[in-house]
Amino acid sequence: MSSPVLPSHGRVRPLGLAQVRLNGGFWYERQVVNASATLAHCESWMERLGWLANFDRVADGTTGPDRPGWPFSDSEVYKLLEALAWEAARTGDPDAEAAIKRLTARVARAQDPDGYLNTCFGHGDQPPRYSDLEGGHELYNTGHLLQAAVARLRTHGEDDLVRLARRAADHVCRVFGADGLAAICGHPEIEVGLAEFGRALGEDRYVEQARLFLDRRGHGTLRDIPLGRAYFQDDLPIREAGVWRGHAVRALYLTAAAVDVAVERRDDELLHAVERQWERSVARRTYITGGMGSRHQDEGFGEDWELPPDRAYCETCAGVASVMVSWRLLLATGQARYADLIERTLYNVIAASPSPDGRAFFYANPLHQRTPGRPADPEEVSPRAEGGTRAAWFDVSCCPTNVARTLASLHGYLATSDDDGLQLHQYAPCSISAELPDGRRAAVEVETGYPRTGTVRVRITAGSTASWTLALRVPAWATGATLTDEGGTREVAPGVAEVRRAFRAGEVVTLDLPVEPRFTWPDPRIDAVRGCVAVERGPEVLCAESRDLPGPAALDALVIDTRAGLKAGDDAALARALLPARPGGAWPYLTHQAAPRSDAGWIDLPLRPYHSWAQRGPAGMRVWLPVSTPHPEGE
Amino acid sequence: MSSPVLPSHGRVRPLGLAQVRLNGGFWYERQVVNASATLAHCESWMERLGWLANFDRVADGTTGPDRPGWPFSDSEVYKLLEALAWEAARTGDPDAEAAIKRLTARVARAQDPDGYLNTCFGHGDQPPRYSDLEGGHELYNTGHLLQAAVARLRTHGEDDLVRLARRAADHVCRVFGADGLAAICGHPEIEVGLAEFGRALGEDRYVEQARLFLDRRGHGTLRDIPLGRAYFQDDLPIREAGVWRGHAVRALYLTAAAVDVAVERRDDELLHAVERQWERSVARRTYITGGMGSRHQDEGFGEDWELPPDRAYCETCAGVASVMVSWRLLLATGQARYADLIERTLYNVIAASPSPDGRAFFYANPLHQRTPGRPADPEEVSPRAEGGTRAAWFDVSCCPTNVARTLASLHGYLATSDDDGLQLHQYAPCSISAELPDGRRAAVEVETGYPRTGTVRVRITAGSTASWTLALRVPAWATGATLTDEGGTREVAPGVAEVRRAFRAGEVVTLDLPVEPRFTWPDPRIDAVRGCVAVERGPEVLCAESRDLPGPAALDALVIDTRAGLKAGDDAALARALLPARPGGAWPYLTHQAAPRSDAGWIDLPLRPYHSWAQRGPAGMRVWLPVSTPHPEGE
Repeated sequence: MSSPVLPSHGRVRPLGLAQVRLNGGFWYERQVVNASATLAHCESWMERLGWLANFDRVADGTTGPDRPGWPFSDSEVYKLLEALAWEAARTGDPDAEAAIKRLTARVARAQDPDGYLNTCFGHGDQPPRYSDLEGGHELYNTGHLLQAAVARLRTHGEDDLVRLARRAADHVCRVFGADGLAAICGHPEIEVGLAEFGRALGEDRYVEQARLFLDRRGHGTLRDIPLGRAYFQDDLPIREAGVWRGHAVRALYLTAAAVDVAVERRDDELLHAVERQWERSVARRTYITGGMGSRHQDEGFGEDWELPPDRAYCETCAGVASVMVSWRLLLATGQARYADLIERTLYNVIAASPSPDGRAFFYANPLHQRTPGRPADPEEVSPRAEGGTRAAWFDVSCCPTNVARTLASLHGYLATSDDDGLQLHQYAPCSISAELPDGRRAAVEVETGYPRTGTVRVRITAGSTASWTLALRVPAWATGATLTDEGGTREVAPGVAEVRRAFRAGEVVTLDLPVEPRFTWPDPRIDAVRGCVAVERGPEVLCAESRDLPGPAALDALVIDTRAGLKAGDDAALARALLPARPGGAWPYLTHQAAPRSDAGWIDLPLRPYHSWAQRGPAGMRVWLPVSTPHPEGE
Repeated sequence: MSSPVLPSHGRVRPLGLAQVRLNGGFWYERQVVNASATLAHCESWMERLGWLANFDRVADGTTGPDRPGWPFSDSEVYKLLEALAWEAARTGDPDAEAAIKRLTARVARAQDPDGYLNTCFGHGDQPPRYSDLEGGHELYNTGHLLQAAVARLRTHGEDDLVRLARRAADHVCRVFGADGLAAICGHPEIEVGLAEFGRALGEDRYVEQARLFLDRRGHGTLRDIPLGRAYFQDDLPIREAGVWRGHAVRALYLTAAAVDVAVERRDDELLHAVERQWERSVARRTYITGGMGSRHQDEGFGEDWELPPDRAYCETCAGVASVMVSWRLLLATGQARYADLIERTLYNVIAASPSPDGRAFFYANPLHQRTPGRPADPEEVSPRAEGGTRAAWFDVSCCPTNVARTLASLHGYLATSDDDGLQLHQYAPCSISAELPDGRRAAVEVETGYPRTGTVRVRITAGSTASWTLALRVPAWATGATLTDEGGTREVAPGVAEVRRAFRAGEVVTLDLPVEPRFTWPDPRIDAVRGCVAVERGPEVLCAESRDLPGPAALDALVIDTRAGLKAGDDAALARALLPARPGGAWPYLTHQAAPRSDAGWIDLPLRPYHSWAQRGPAGMRVWLPVSTPHPEGE
């Protein structure tokens, strides 16, 4: 069955990508842009920068230390291959199929006879293989190769890509097996690649190698670095850690693998350790957007409550990785909270990254942009992960291909099944069909304008004489949601709403979610946004942009009156805001609290979805809006 | 005359270090510890790490690319030499004198016949001279050598150190002169070194070389780097820039040199450009401590209003550099605002760095420490600039020697003179004597317990039949200060209070500064501390430490009632605070504003000087305290 993640067991089962089809709406449009623009865009940039030619040069014996690109540029080719594999299966697109063959052939030529495959080490005058495990990313690259091979295997079957990936995996097992080098890679990824490759091929030894890498980590196995071993999660064994820390993408790829290994080994201790880390990290180290990673310095999680909106890193790839983790936990446990975080992250991190034309991307996703960025040059490689405008490509360009592979397989994250029925986790116009035990078939068509509107109509498309359960996630924010079926309308609480019966074809179950804009307040321990409020609408976080104000300085000065509530406008919402004049003082620390000048005028401040910010051009932006009348505390 | 900075003209003149003697108190104690512990501590670490032997190895022809230390480690030896020179003059300490000779001899042996002097480039298999101007720090090192030579020349006269520095400076002028390589150094410092060396020797060509370097900068003269050219101020000519940006120490060393060149060239355009940059940077990019540099990533200034307390970098060296800039501007203009910032920075950045025993240092000076650091190992080199505990030494160890040279010459920053009298800028127990024109002599003795107490008694120690003016700075925070002399007591406004007459010996002028603890509120545009208040006492910023609370988590939760005012306690102040229980939620973004449980108890929260934080051991700490009852805005 074709699915990025296929555990051997779990509370719920993923549906194959062939069982779910997006029919329109928010995510379908992004899949179309991804297919028609992003995939070719990525290949063309990698050709232009020589990242593809790196494989040719290894094959031709002409490579050396002058090889262009970072040591992890091979992985971008593999992530593109993964995206192409999902895309070729989604639409049967012959261009995607041709690209897979074209890229696979070039990659294959670079593989050494013993299975080693890397363009940065071990050839010509390059450093020897595995001579820099802390920073070399060799096994990281291989992990992405295996994920690409999984996609190909599950959508197409064995081919050259799968065969070369198997040789690469076998090489890794030989070198790093139980009797081999007791080492790990500075950037986790081989673990999640091996675990899924083992599942896809039914070969447990790959899962076992993933377990070995996992258990080796956290004992100071890698050399110390100035950022400390927490940077690559080698400070504490994953079973003992209480929270995610260090480089966010590394922490999350590692955690995804830990869920895979825990499930395959029925290792509940490990699973529960991961669940605890998820809980604490989500409660204290996660942005309202779902974004993770508070620090630019190490692309890392900060400490508890350290969630600055302006310097939020919130790397797009960390969003992808967070979805990987929560999806695995959802499959293992069936709990709605994991689908809640997936939804939040999809709408407010992953959807924020690509431009509408699919040819420019955000790398970092801050929640506050003070100074509008420079307009991006579509021919320029951005040296920086920041800047406030989407860039065509990056010097470190992990995000575009990560977005591409996620969007191409996104329909795989909407729904699951179990022995008793179908669970809908994300709402989009789609057709779903699942075979249940005892010959039952659960087939539905979802019609909805979500997230713009809150009505989700689930039409049963295949009648059945036997009962099954249709389970609909009610998002945590959806207080007052209702469910309407033939039995009438009832209020349903956040969590899961279920309807169980022998459905007849054409029957409709309607979930109504309250998507009116709402104020959201931060925990008082999040120092950086004290005295502020955010506005959300359904799963979307909204923001103010300087383009709707007299200028960027107005974003610094504005205050919101929450008592005036929120109004609907042409944009997502309108808030009542004051734009006080704030004359510049010589010293910004005062003997009294500043009060704005009384002649400041109230305006209706437009608020728009965060994921669309800067689409009208460079802009100042803020998600967290200072409030004019904070409620007193401790009175 | 012995003084670190001796402009050829200016609104006021520095006093020579021999004209001011500290007699006790806050800064005297730190000078004693610096002399008796820090200087030897620095030399011993540089010996231990091979930074001194690097000079021997160049002399012996045994060095190579394996040389230990960063490319700028030579500069630490020079900064130590500078500190030793000031110290030898301050006390006549024979150990300091011996150390100068010992270190000078080792440095001298490493100088190439053409004057080039560097242990990291140009010898053995090292990269060629000036092959990495962006990162190599060669001219930066030379700049510190020149500052050391200035100290030696002005306190002792020409010796081997001065002679070798002259050869090094001549080499720089030959290579980088008007007809030479049109290049600059990635880290400014050569400019300020050359300017002062030229003044000390009366050789204008060194000042001219400094001007050349200054005017070459800001035109993309250096290669671009991922952090951008603003990192080393090569993005904009200094005459055109409106604010400090990029790496804080670089920006400030460059600015200090710009003041020197502006003064020597009577270039008011340049001086006014620097004043504008100072104004905007102090108004929008400076911490309440005087600390500068908001970002760890590039050790840099952030944007306007970007002043996070927890991730504040506030490098100790940036404090030293900020004092260098403001001192030069004070000499040029006589304006009290520059002395205000110097005082703030001395008490809350520079004094915070060294431990009471002078053998451990803060590198970064954040205003909020969430998690107590690890106890520091006195035998360990800290790889990191952060951590919440003072470290014996650092991998990048610029701060200890920078503190040492500043403390050894600190008495030079207390007072100035002009044709009409004496200006006291900083208050400490001291004796001051200055010759004025027309044979007048201004001699005073200052008695004070400042900053603990606010009374500053200035006793005239030499009578005079001719009038002169005693000018006393009234700090900007000192509303309600009074001045008492034989004419009675009068209120004096912040700025400068003057008494002009023919003083008789024994006469006393008393300044009373209000040093009761006070609340200070941030500009509402400083997002990171919205809804918080700081407490200051005189020039000292106070802070709360977790050691005075049930635990670090209490620092996250506490709120202050500002209406209850502040009380005096055994510590600097007591504030009325609530420690609400804040039960952990699953998601920290809420549908309503959190209210603490009503059974939370009020306590008297001890507040202590920020500069002494973590002296009792690792601790959580915060300067900005959330308030329980923010005043409503925009009502």
